[in-house]
Order: sequence, then structure tokens, then C-alpha cells
Amino acid sequence: MSAYSIGVDLGGTNLRAAAIDENGRQLDRYSIATPNREGSREEIVAGIVALVRGVQERVGAGELRGVGIGVPGYIQMDTGVIVSAANLPFTNFPIRDDVQNRLGIPILLENDANAAALGEHWMGAGRGVNSLFLLTLGTGIGGGIIIDGKVLHGFAGMAGEPGHMTVYPDGNPCGCGNQGCLEKHASATAVVAMARLLGLGDNRITASDVYEMAVAGNGRAKVVFECMGRALGIALANLINLFNFPLYLLSGGPLPAWDMFAPTMFAEVKRRSYTYSRTETKIEKATLGSEAGLYGAAYLPFQRKDTEPSMRLEALQEFNDSR
Amino acid sequence: MSAYSIGVDLGGTNLRAAAIDENGRQLDRYSIATPNREGSREEIVAGIVALVRGVQERVGAGELRGVGIGVPGYIQMDTGVIVSAANLPFTNFPIRDDVQNRLGIPILLENDANAAALGEHWMGAGRGVNSLFLLTLGTGIGGGIIIDGKVLHGFAGMAGEPGHMTVYPDGNPCGCGNQGCLEKHASATAVVAMARLLGLGDNRITASDVYEMAVAGNGRAKVVFECMGRALGIALANLINLFNFPLYLLSGGPLPAWDMFAPTMFAEVKRRSYTYSRTETKIEKATLGSEAGLYGAAYLPFQRKDTEPSMRLEALQEFNDSR
Repeated sequence: MSAYSIGVDLGGTNLRAAAIDENGRQLDRYSIATPNREGSREEIVAGIVALVRGVQERVGAGELRGVGIGVPGYIQMDTGVIVSAANLPFTNFPIRDDVQNRLGIPILLENDANAAALGEHWMGAGRGVNSLFLLTLGTGIGGGIIIDGKVLHGFAGMAGEPGHMTVYPDGNPCGCGNQGCLEKHASATAVVAMARLLGLGDNRITASDVYEMAVAGNGRAKVVFECMGRALGIALANLINLFNFPLYLLSGGPLPAWDMFAPTMFAEVKRRSYTYSRTETKIEKATLGSEAGLYGAAYLPFQRKDTEPSMRLEALQEFNDSR
Repeated sequence: MSAYSIGVDLGGTNLRAAAIDENGRQLDRYSIATPNREGSREEIVAGIVALVRGVQERVGAGELRGVGIGVPGYIQMDTGVIVSAANLPFTNFPIRDDVQNRLGIPILLENDANAAALGEHWMGAGRGVNSLFLLTLGTGIGGGIIIDGKVLHGFAGMAGEPGHMTVYPDGNPCGCGNQGCLEKHASATAVVAMARLLGLGDNRITASDVYEMAVAGNGRAKVVFECMGRALGIALANLINLFNFPLYLLSGGPLPAWDMFAPTMFAEVKRRSYTYSRTETKIEKATLGSEAGLYGAAYLPFQRKDTEPSMRLEALQEFNDSR
């Protein structure tokens, strides 16, 4: 049996774990609803530990290379501390060491958007592509940058925030203090906001409703997706001119509306990036969906040799030897 | 005596070479006017060979690690071919192998803007900083991206084109096909164009004239630099949100006007990038000026061990042994 690792996706709604082998084959998986009562931090950590132990027991034999956890928040990479997390009760919490101490297995952390990018690189639409940019369209717009197979973190762990690129200098005000941020013009939230402004519905309308209207031929709904495509195109052209990666991936809820926003998006990119026009640059749908983060988390232990201090590798050796 | 390398800066006006040791000390340098008659390609190549030999002879003893050449054009990195070059008679010309064959010394090529970024990283304002972005303001706006001490080339060697980032989606049309490119709003050329539009002078006015007017209190000239600062600020905020590097450097002709454009630039960056507001991110003047490319070219052989095939290292060994 080949070596495997366990990936954990700590989401606001679900807490999932999967054992995945070196070839990307899922050996076992399990998920629970993320404990979300007041003061549920201990429950969440205990849940992670229980999930990992459960998966590990069911897999049985095989060399466990480590556990990777994808976290929806801001992580201090060197200390393994969650500084803050969206919708989760973690503030300045040393989750890596805490889980590591309980499990006795080396733990690796990654931001969830970065983990998703890594997952797509390993087993998704970016398989075989060394450098790529993943944009995740949702409430906001997140992203992950993979260069030569590794996540670009930046010096403070804040690299890859395409959602706050300025696409319209005098555009829609954003909570970050800026105006015209990409995510104010191209996220699922932005689609809903535009639809409401165009009188397509009230506060119960969803991005998916707007899509249905566009498919049914509603001109204003079509305009919403054209505007989304234009903003995405401006941003993607910038990314292409800066990074010259071979691949840019889009994922997230609005992906089914691809046919509605993609034509405008491609037209903008073509016009605004001569690098795009002159090279085999690809803009594609991500393929792993919500599984991407799980794959990326599981990939962390496999790529660790290059990137982590040997100390932890030794601890892992001991752990495997002791079994 | 310590090891040294020779950096060559192939400019449209001057052809320069300098022997620089591992510690960044210049041992010798020489420059000639770049031959610019019709069909002067052979003269230029012969000039490079003569400059390198001359510098090498005057340095005398010492281990030569190689020769790096900075080229103002588009290079195929793997083949060492200049695909095209601004103001120089090179089209699909295998300059690396040609010079290498004549000199019998391993040659490394780099685009001039990338070389300048590498030079600032090695011996300039970016000394001790592993990852940085250099923007060179001139006729256009070029740039170089250094990540963990290495140039980011992109898959087609076209990474780092900040000049064509869209800062105003409906802005000034650019020769690249886009509108509102950064370089149409913040280069020396853009400063002149704005000044003319504001009635500050005719086609003989220079960016430096506009600066003198602003210093003398001319309100319209001040507005020109505020507009330049705003465009730079929008672009820099995007770069900071994407890369989260600790350092962004500006170089080029308009640098003396720093006090005129920097206040608006910093105000925009602060407003548009929460990463900037929350981290110790620095935006500074580059310090090597036109020497940056020469230093960067000379640095190439020193960093080669990590990045180049061993074959050429062996060739270099033979070369040094044979002396």
C-alpha cells in the first residue's frame, strides 16, 4: 500500500476529512457539521482530532505522511496560529500545535483559498501545470497563487487577494476602504446587488435566480452577467500581464453562469492583455468544486520535504517508526 | 582575490560592461556608444566580445564565474534567443550562443528590466529583501518581479508588465490595444502628454520641465503629478494586494519629481490596500539608477548554481581550469 495523507477542510458549515494517497486516490472520508454554538472552539478542535483518528483507523495500514488543514482565515504560517477566521471562533489560536499535540502527528496549515489552488494544481484543472492563479467567486472573491508548485504566501501571509484589486477606481465602495474592488463587481454578492439595483427582485433574490432570468432571456439579467464578465476580464488581463502564468482558474457558486459572463470576460481579456493574445494562456473552470480544498490540504504533507524544517520531518519519522 | 563576474548592459544608447566581485565591488568597467548604423548587429556583438575581453584582461587574476547580459527586449530564456528588441537590430537572433562561442565563456541573458530588479535586490534598495517588485518609469513603464531572490519569468518570459495594468478601464488608449494602461497615465511620456493637454507647453516640453513648473508653484503642473501619483497608487495597491511583498521600488527619469507625485500615490495606496495599512510594506526609490541593470547582469552568474543546467557549469569549470 502506498503512502497517504489526511486532508482536513475546516469550513464554516462542514468539517471534513479525507485520506488521500500519493496518487490522489481517496481512501476514506468523513464529515460532520461544524460545531457552531457559542464557545465551540474546543468542540471544533476535538472534532478535527476525532475525524482524523477515525479516518486513520479505517484506512489501517499504510504510511501516514501527515495531516494538512485548510482554514478559512488568516494564518501565521511560521507559528501555525490562526489570527482570525471568518465565521469561526478562532482568534490568535495556536491550532497547529494544539492539534499536533493531541494527535502526535505533524500538522500543516494552509489558508482555504490557497489550499483550493493547490488542490486544483495537484488533482484538478491544473494537473500538470506548475504555475496558476485560482479565483474563487463567492460572497467575496478569494484566490490562491501557485508558482512552481508552491503557494505564494507573501511576507505576511496575505498574498493572493484578487478580490480587492481595483477594477473601477471610482466604483462601488467596499468594506475594505477601497472603491471598485473586483469583488464589488463580480462576486455572487455583486450579482445580487446589481440585480436588485436593476429592479429584478428584492432581498430574497439569489445569483442563481438572476442566472435563470438571464437564461430565460431577461435583458437586464443578461446585463448583470455582462458587467460581471467585464470586471472579471479587467482583473484577469491584469493578472495575465503581471504573472504570465499558463492557467487561470475560476471556481465558486456563479460558475454555472459561465456562458452568461464568459463571452464578455474573454472579450475584455483579449483587448486588455497582449500577453493573452500572443500566448497559449488559458482561462478555465476549476474542476474540483468544493473538494479542491480537501485535496490541497491533503497535498501539503506530500510537498513538505521541500518547504518545511527537517525537525518536523524527524518527528514524523519517529511517529511512523513507533507504529 | 575573490571570484568575479562580468555584467553587460546592452542599451540602445550605450553598451557597458563591468567586472563585479561576489561582494558587489566593481573591479573594472568600460562603455562604448552602441553601434547604431544600419545592419550593425555584427558590430554590436563584436563590441560585446571586445568589452568583455578588455575588462577581463584588466582585472587579470581571479576566478571568472561567467558573463551576464541585460537586453532591452523579449528573450526566449531556454534558447537564449532575442526574439525582438526595442531600438536594436536583433530579431530571432541566438545572441547567447553566438557570444558564448566567440568568448568561450558561459553567457546568461536577462531582460533589462528584470536585470535592474535583480540588481536592486543584490546591491541596491532591495539589499537583504528576498521578494520585491521594481517599476521603471520611462517612455513606458516596465518592471521586474523578484520572488525569493529569483526573477519571475512566467511561462513565456512575459511576466512583470505593470505598464499595461488597467488603472482606468475607460482611460487613455494604449498602443497595446487596451485603454487606461498604467503607462498611459504615469510614465514620463504620460506626464508630457498631460502637460500638453493642460496647455503647459508644446511638443518640446519634457517631464523635467513640468517638474520645474510644479516646483515653481504652477497649479496645473502640480495636477499633472497628482494624476501620475493617483495612477501609480491604484497600480501599487493592486500589486500589494496580489503579491504581499515587503518592498516595491520605483526607478527612472521621473524619480526626482517624487515629492510632487508621492503624496497622492501614498494616499491612494493607503485607501486601496488594507494589506498596506496593516503591514510594514514599503514603497521606496530605487537607488542604483542606470547602474541597476549592470549589477543585475553581473549577478546572474553568481546565482546560476540554483537555476541553470549543470552542463554549463561544467563548461565553466573547464574554462577556468584551462586558464
